[in-house]
Amino acid sequence: MAADEKNAEEIFKEFKEQSITQFFRKNSQMLGYSGKVRSLTTVIHEYVANSLDACEEAGVFPDISVEVKEISESRHHVTVTDNGPGIPQKHIGKALASILSGTKFHRYLQQRGQQGIGAGGCTLFSAITTGKPIHARSGTGKGSSFECDIAIDIKTNKPLITNMKTVLEDFRGTSVSGEFGDTKYERSDHGVFEYIKRTALSNPHASIRLVEPDGKETVFPRSVNEMPKRPKQTKPHPLGISARDLLDFAHIADSKNVSSFLMESFSRVSAAKIDELKAVADGVNFDKRPRELTWPDAEKVVEAFGKIKWIAPETDSLSVIGAKQMETAMLNIINPQFISVTERKPKIFKGGIPFVVEAGIAYGGDAGKKTEEGTKGTIMRFANKVPLLFDGSVCAITEAVNQIQWKRYGIRDFGDEPISVFVNISSVYIPYNGIGKQAVSQEAEIIEELKLGIMECARKLQIHINKQRSMHVRESRYKTIMRYIGQLSADLSEITGEEPVKIEESLKKIVENKYDMGNDTADEEESDADTGLLEESD
Amino acid sequence: MAADEKNAEEIFKEFKEQSITQFFRKNSQMLGYSGKVRSLTTVIHEYVANSLDACEEAGVFPDISVEVKEISESRHHVTVTDNGPGIPQKHIGKALASILSGTKFHRYLQQRGQQGIGAGGCTLFSAITTGKPIHARSGTGKGSSFECDIAIDIKTNKPLITNMKTVLEDFRGTSVSGEFGDTKYERSDHGVFEYIKRTALSNPHASIRLVEPDGKETVFPRSVNEMPKRPKQTKPHPLGISARDLLDFAHIADSKNVSSFLMESFSRVSAAKIDELKAVADGVNFDKRPRELTWPDAEKVVEAFGKIKWIAPETDSLSVIGAKQMETAMLNIINPQFISVTERKPKIFKGGIPFVVEAGIAYGGDAGKKTEEGTKGTIMRFANKVPLLFDGSVCAITEAVNQIQWKRYGIRDFGDEPISVFVNISSVYIPYNGIGKQAVSQEAEIIEELKLGIMECARKLQIHINKQRSMHVRESRYKTIMRYIGQLSADLSEITGEEPVKIEESLKKIVENKYDMGNDTADEEESDADTGLLEESD
Repeated sequence: MAADEKNAEEIFKEFKEQSITQFFRKNSQMLGYSGKVRSLTTVIHEYVANSLDACEEAGVFPDISVEVKEISESRHHVTVTDNGPGIPQKHIGKALASILSGTKFHRYLQQRGQQGIGAGGCTLFSAITTGKPIHARSGTGKGSSFECDIAIDIKTNKPLITNMKTVLEDFRGTSVSGEFGDTKYERSDHGVFEYIKRTALSNPHASIRLVEPDGKETVFPRSVNEMPKRPKQTKPHPLGISARDLLDFAHIADSKNVSSFLMESFSRVSAAKIDELKAVADGVNFDKRPRELTWPDAEKVVEAFGKIKWIAPETDSLSVIGAKQMETAMLNIINPQFISVTERKPKIFKGGIPFVVEAGIAYGGDAGKKTEEGTKGTIMRFANKVPLLFDGSVCAITEAVNQIQWKRYGIRDFGDEPISVFVNISSVYIPYNGIGKQAVSQEAEIIEELKLGIMECARKLQIHINKQRSMHVRESRYKTIMRYIGQLSADLSEITGEEPVKIEESLKKIVENKYDMGNDTADEEESDADTGLLEESD
Repeated sequence: MAADEKNAEEIFKEFKEQSITQFFRKNSQMLGYSGKVRSLTTVIHEYVANSLDACEEAGVFPDISVEVKEISESRHHVTVTDNGPGIPQKHIGKALASILSGTKFHRYLQQRGQQGIGAGGCTLFSAITTGKPIHARSGTGKGSSFECDIAIDIKTNKPLITNMKTVLEDFRGTSVSGEFGDTKYERSDHGVFEYIKRTALSNPHASIRLVEPDGKETVFPRSVNEMPKRPKQTKPHPLGISARDLLDFAHIADSKNVSSFLMESFSRVSAAKIDELKAVADGVNFDKRPRELTWPDAEKVVEAFGKIKWIAPETDSLSVIGAKQMETAMLNIINPQFISVTERKPKIFKGGIPFVVEAGIAYGGDAGKKTEEGTKGTIMRFANKVPLLFDGSVCAITEAVNQIQWKRYGIRDFGDEPISVFVNISSVYIPYNGIGKQAVSQEAEIIEELKLGIMECARKLQIHINKQRSMHVRESRYKTIMRYIGQLSADLSEITGEEPVKIEESLKKIVENKYDMGNDTADEEESDADTGLLEESD
C-alpha cells in the first residue's frame, strides 16, 4: 500500500445512518421545494390535498379556505382551513410533523395523499427557511377544540409540540398555518391561483376560497351538489400481482391455508377460481400455510393468475370526477366551442391495483393557452383529482399526448391550435416518478391506457372538425351557385318560355335541398377516424 | 353528524408509520427502477459509481469489470468487481443492504454517491423482482477475503446476512453480484453500454471492462496515467449559508464561543474576518456559546456574511475531470472537426457549498447524434463525473443549453447540427431533483453558471464557424476568378502585346495573394461573439 492510500478500516470509520428527515433537510428540492414559486405552490398543494381527503373520508362537502399573506418579498404566511373531521389531539403531532407516517399509505383506498410525507415536509420546509414551528387548530365540532405549535425534530423525525391550549369554542375541522421563506407569490401557470383554479375544476363538489397577498378574495363555488361516491377500501386484483407482492401478503396472513389466503386477500377470487388455479399452478400445495409459500410457489401462482379469466376489478374502490361533472366544469371554466369527455373502464396496474382514466378535449372558444404568438395547445394533468403543475415533460400524461398522431384527428399541430386536453388518472396507488408527486411515471401500460382515453375524445373532435370543414366547403359552393341562379333562370326562361321567377324559385329549391345543412353523409365518407385508431392502438 | 359520516377517531385508528425501505418497496420507480432498460442501467450505475468512489478514496487507479448475463428475456445477472479498498466484514451488510446509511452523505467530500441509498436500492430491487439476496465478496488484499449473501429486511431496513464464508485467497476489492428481474439489455442511448462508454469518457483514469449478455467483451482502457487530485474534506464557505444551516452547525458545535465556532466550522473565516463581521452583525453577542445562538442572531450573521468580502472557496475539495483530460477523451471518443473546452472557477451554492462547471463543445466529424433524419445536436450530461442518461428534460444542464441563443454562435438550429455539448458539474453536494439522481435541479444560480461555461466554449466555436464560412466564400470567389483568368490574359495580351502566359502567371499571383488562406482579418470583422455574450449574460 502506497503512503497516500487509505484502507477500508479508515474509510468505514465514517459509516453512519441518517433519518429520513435529515435526508429531506438536505434534499428538500425532492419534495417540490425548488424555486420560490414552486415552493409556495407545494405548501398549498400539500395542505389542500389533505383537507379534501379528510372531508371526503368523513363524508362532508369540503369548504376550504386558503389565505396567503406576504411577510416580505420572499417570505409568506399561509393558512389553510377546512371543515373536515379534525385531527385527534394525540395524533396531531405525527400527522403534521413526522415523515413517512399517516393514515393513508398502507390502505387500499384511493386518496390524494398516499405517502405520509406531505404535511411533515411543509413543517420541515418552514423550519429550514424560517426556524419557526407551524400552528395548528383542530376540533371535532363536539364542544371544545385545541390549538398548538408543532415543530419537527430533524434528527429523530419526531414532532415537538408546544403551547398546547384548549379553546372553549365549537370548531369542526382543521386549520394549519405557517410561515415559509424562499417563496414567491405570482399568478403564473405554476402559481397558487392556477393550482386552486384547477383544483376547483377537478373537485366541483368543493367550495374553495382564496385570499391572495394583495387582499383579493376569489371564491370558486361548489358547482355540483352531489358528493362524489366515497371510495371503498379494496383488495388487490390478482392480475398485476408479482411473486414478491404475493409473498409479502402471504407472510403476514392469518389464513389457515393458501386457498383461503388467496380468497381473503384478493378481490374476485372465489372457490371456483381456486379450483381453476389449482389445475394450472402445477405442483403448488394449496393446503399448506400461507407463510410456507416459497418464491417458486409464488411465481407459479402468479403465472396461473395470468392464465385464467377474471372479472374486471371492482370500481367502487375508485373515486372519479365523473364524465358529466367534468363536462360541466370544463364548460364553466374553459367555455369552448366543442367538448368531448370520456370515462374509461378500470384497468390493472402492477401490484393488482386498478386505475381509471378520464379524459376530455375542449376545442375552440377559450380552449388552449393564449400567448403573444397565438393560441397554443395545452395539457391539464390531474392525478386523483389533484392538479399536476410541474415536471410535465417527464409525465406519462404528456408522453401520451405527444405520442398521439394528432394529424389523424384533424389537428395539424397540437402546439398551435386552440385545444385543451384534460386528463385525470384515479387509483389507490398512483406511481409518481418523484416524492414531489408532480408527474406520473412513464410506465408502458399506463401510457397506453391514457392514449386510448384521449384518442376516444379525439375521434369525436375529428368528426366535429370534419363537419365544420365540409360545412364551410358546402357553404361556399352554395353561395357560388346562388350567385349564378339569376342569370341561369333568365337564360332558361328564354329557351323554355317559362317565367324567370318561377324557374329561379325551383332552381333555388333544388340547390337548397342539395346543400341542406342537416345532411351528414359527406362527413361519414370523409372520416377515417376508426381506421386511425386501429392503426394506432396496434 | 349524518349516518354515513366518519369521525376523526375512526379515521385515525389507521394511523401508522412505515420504514424508508417499505416506502421504496412501493415506490421503486423513484429510485430509477422504472422501465426495463432503465432499471438495468440503474443497477450498473449504482455499483460502478460506488466502485469508482472507493478506488478514488483509497487512492488507487480503478480497474472495474462489469458483466451482464441474460437469465431470461427480462431477467439478468449482474457482477461488478473493483480493485478498491474492500468493505470490512462488519460493515458489509449495512453498506449493501440498508437505506440511508453509508460513509458519504454526512461528509463535506466530493463523491459520486451522496445519499446512502444506491446499493441498498439494488438489493431491494433484486428482492422485489427475484426474491433473491445479492452476493458479495470483499477483501483488503491482506490474506483472506470473505463472501456472503445479503438480503434486506423491508420492514426494519436492516441487512440479513447468510452463508458468510472466509475465502483463503488474496483478493483486494469488492465484487457484488445479483439477479434482477423486470430488466432488458439493449444497446440504446439509455442502455448499459452507453452508460459505461460515457463513464469512461468522464473517468479517463479508470479502466473499465464490459461483458455483454452475448459474450462480447469491450475494454475501455485507461487513457490518462495520472490520478485525479483526491478531493479533500472541506468546510462550508460562509456565502450560501442560511440561518438554518448556521444554527444546525452551532447547535452541535463544541467551540467555546460564537467567534471560535465560526472560525472552526467555516472556511475562509479568520480572526480579522470575525472583527469585520462583529462590526456589521449588529447586536449579536460573539462571546456567547454557539448553542445559545437564536434564529434572529443567525439571520443577522448570515446577512453580515453577505456584506463583507470573501476569498473564493478552496478548490481542493473538488475533483474535476480537467480541461486537458476532457479534451483528450472527447477527441478519442467523438473525433470531431472542432473542439473547445473550459473549466470554470468555483462558485457557491446554497449551504456554502462550492461547485465547478466544466464544459466542452465538439463540432463536425462524429459530433452530434447520427439518426435517419440526419445528425442531431446532443447533450452529454455528467455530475461528479457520473453520466446522467435519464430525465434530461427536467435537468438544469438541458435547460442551460436550451436557454442559449445558439444563432448568435453560428448554430442555426441546435437540434439539427453536428454538435455535442459536454457538461460536468462537480460538487460536494449536487442538488439532484430526485432520488434516482438523473437530473440536476433547476436552481437559478446553477443554470446561470452552466450557461456561462457553455457560452465560453460557444464563442470559440463561433470563431471557428465564421472562419470556415468566410474561407468557403473566399474559396468560391477564388475559383470563379481563376476560371476567367485565361480569357482575361488573352484579351490583355491583344491590347498590350505581352505574352498571354506571362500575363496569366502574374494575374494568378495577384489573385492567390489576395485570397491567401492564412489571412484572417475578414473573420475578426464579422465576429460579434463578445457582444453576444454581454447581451445574454445581462
